[in-house]
Amino acid sequence: MDIVRSVDDLRERVADWRGQGLNVGLVPTMGALHSGHMALAGRSVETMERTIASLFINPKQFGQGEDLESYPRNEQSDAEQLTNAGVDLLFTPTTEQMYPAGFATGVAVSGLGDILEGSSRPGFFDGVATVVCKLLNQAAVDAAFFGEKDYQQLLVIRTMARDLNIPTRIEGVATVREADGLALSSRNVYLSTEERQGAPALYKTICDVATKIKAGAPLAEAEAWGSAQIVAAGFAGVDYLSVVDSETLEPYDDASRPGRVLVAAQLGRARLIDNVAL
Amino acid sequence: MDIVRSVDDLRERVADWRGQGLNVGLVPTMGALHSGHMALAGRSVETMERTIASLFINPKQFGQGEDLESYPRNEQSDAEQLTNAGVDLLFTPTTEQMYPAGFATGVAVSGLGDILEGSSRPGFFDGVATVVCKLLNQAAVDAAFFGEKDYQQLLVIRTMARDLNIPTRIEGVATVREADGLALSSRNVYLSTEERQGAPALYKTICDVATKIKAGAPLAEAEAWGSAQIVAAGFAGVDYLSVVDSETLEPYDDASRPGRVLVAAQLGRARLIDNVAL
Repeated sequence: MDIVRSVDDLRERVADWRGQGLNVGLVPTMGALHSGHMALAGRSVETMERTIASLFINPKQFGQGEDLESYPRNEQSDAEQLTNAGVDLLFTPTTEQMYPAGFATGVAVSGLGDILEGSSRPGFFDGVATVVCKLLNQAAVDAAFFGEKDYQQLLVIRTMARDLNIPTRIEGVATVREADGLALSSRNVYLSTEERQGAPALYKTICDVATKIKAGAPLAEAEAWGSAQIVAAGFAGVDYLSVVDSETLEPYDDASRPGRVLVAAQLGRARLIDNVAL
Repeated sequence: MDIVRSVDDLRERVADWRGQGLNVGLVPTMGALHSGHMALAGRSVETMERTIASLFINPKQFGQGEDLESYPRNEQSDAEQLTNAGVDLLFTPTTEQMYPAGFATGVAVSGLGDILEGSSRPGFFDGVATVVCKLLNQAAVDAAFFGEKDYQQLLVIRTMARDLNIPTRIEGVATVREADGLALSSRNVYLSTEERQGAPALYKTICDVATKIKAGAPLAEAEAWGSAQIVAAGFAGVDYLSVVDSETLEPYDDASRPGRVLVAAQLGRARLIDNVAL
């Protein structure tokens, strides 16, 4: 696997592949790779003729007081995993390459980007939409792969790409979980041994909430029950636990449509998010 | 000249040209074409192997109370002029094609997009940046041509395209003027005969302001003198008359750098803008 650090080098490689008639997939990451990322890479390697992974810790999607400085970094291990997964090229731009002096442009998705995670982390989805817009324009690939673990992010990116006519297919890949149900996340390393033992309560609770909703429980009641369960399991607080329409993320009020339970909660130093389909 | 109304048809034509190794230029317009637009089309036809013009009156760049409803529309005359200029393809999407139900994404250029014209017309440059981002992604051309008459718009678009890594060269084309100096504008049709006679004072005044600045006049003094001249010529009011750095549009405080005089003023029903280099 080759590693390129500039947009020009990236484009040269993609143009070369295109010239050979090969289709190309992109797996954007912030590094600290785990089996969830590897599922994205695997899907691209399986379905596309060439696969690029990107590794860029995007400062624009970290808010004041968030963990930009301490976010886990393991570039060597990341590169080894990607090589083993059959990824063809790793793109690791510098911050100066992505946001040179004078950078002034922002991309925002209103509505979808303002609620839930967007409300808890102001500016987060603007940072995500901006960097993914850039990555998609830089790489000009046929498809890009994102995890359903960040479900709202997947919807924001899909909306942004559709609205701005970026000709890249956005594909969601199912969440990868530990044996006890905890969704894989680069931030799980923040958990102490004890916190790690309590962490699966997050997934278990949203599964139970989904079951209650399907059995006809009122939304507000099921949501309140779920939040109480999570706090009882040792979480410091629940940012939101919401049963929503799978496409609009508006409160789930039409049982004929697909729904989703989304949650964000704080456990020790780690802010964990997860979601399940109804 | 063929006319296409859907993004799919546009992309098919461009892909066909690319397959033949031809480079392509785009001239985005809101129609009501005049010799200024024809200079853009002419530059593209001269320098590119194929030229597309787009015609779309972009509702997102009109504010509350602005002239979206009355903006001049002459699609037949526009198509004739473009045909005569040697344009190969006209792209005229519907509003539903550009902004389908659920459209939620905005592109904004902070700083450059907030001052002067951006301050007088809140949201204007967001609307411009969003639609041009879409057009550039839709057409995927090698170069796109914009008039220097809308100087700040040219800078906003150039910044947006650079920041979002859109691989299209943004080219500025010099302002086309009537014999008496009035910059061509689709909105000049709003002027009464009498207003039309007074309108060239706008250009004359900013040329005089440029001369004063080059002769060492203080900025504020020259700007105040210019505004007074324009009001004395019959304009109802001056939104701004500013001497600025040609790249940053910040107040001009470094005589070693290129500068520009920018003006916006109201004359009857028409809001006119113009600019000259120092």
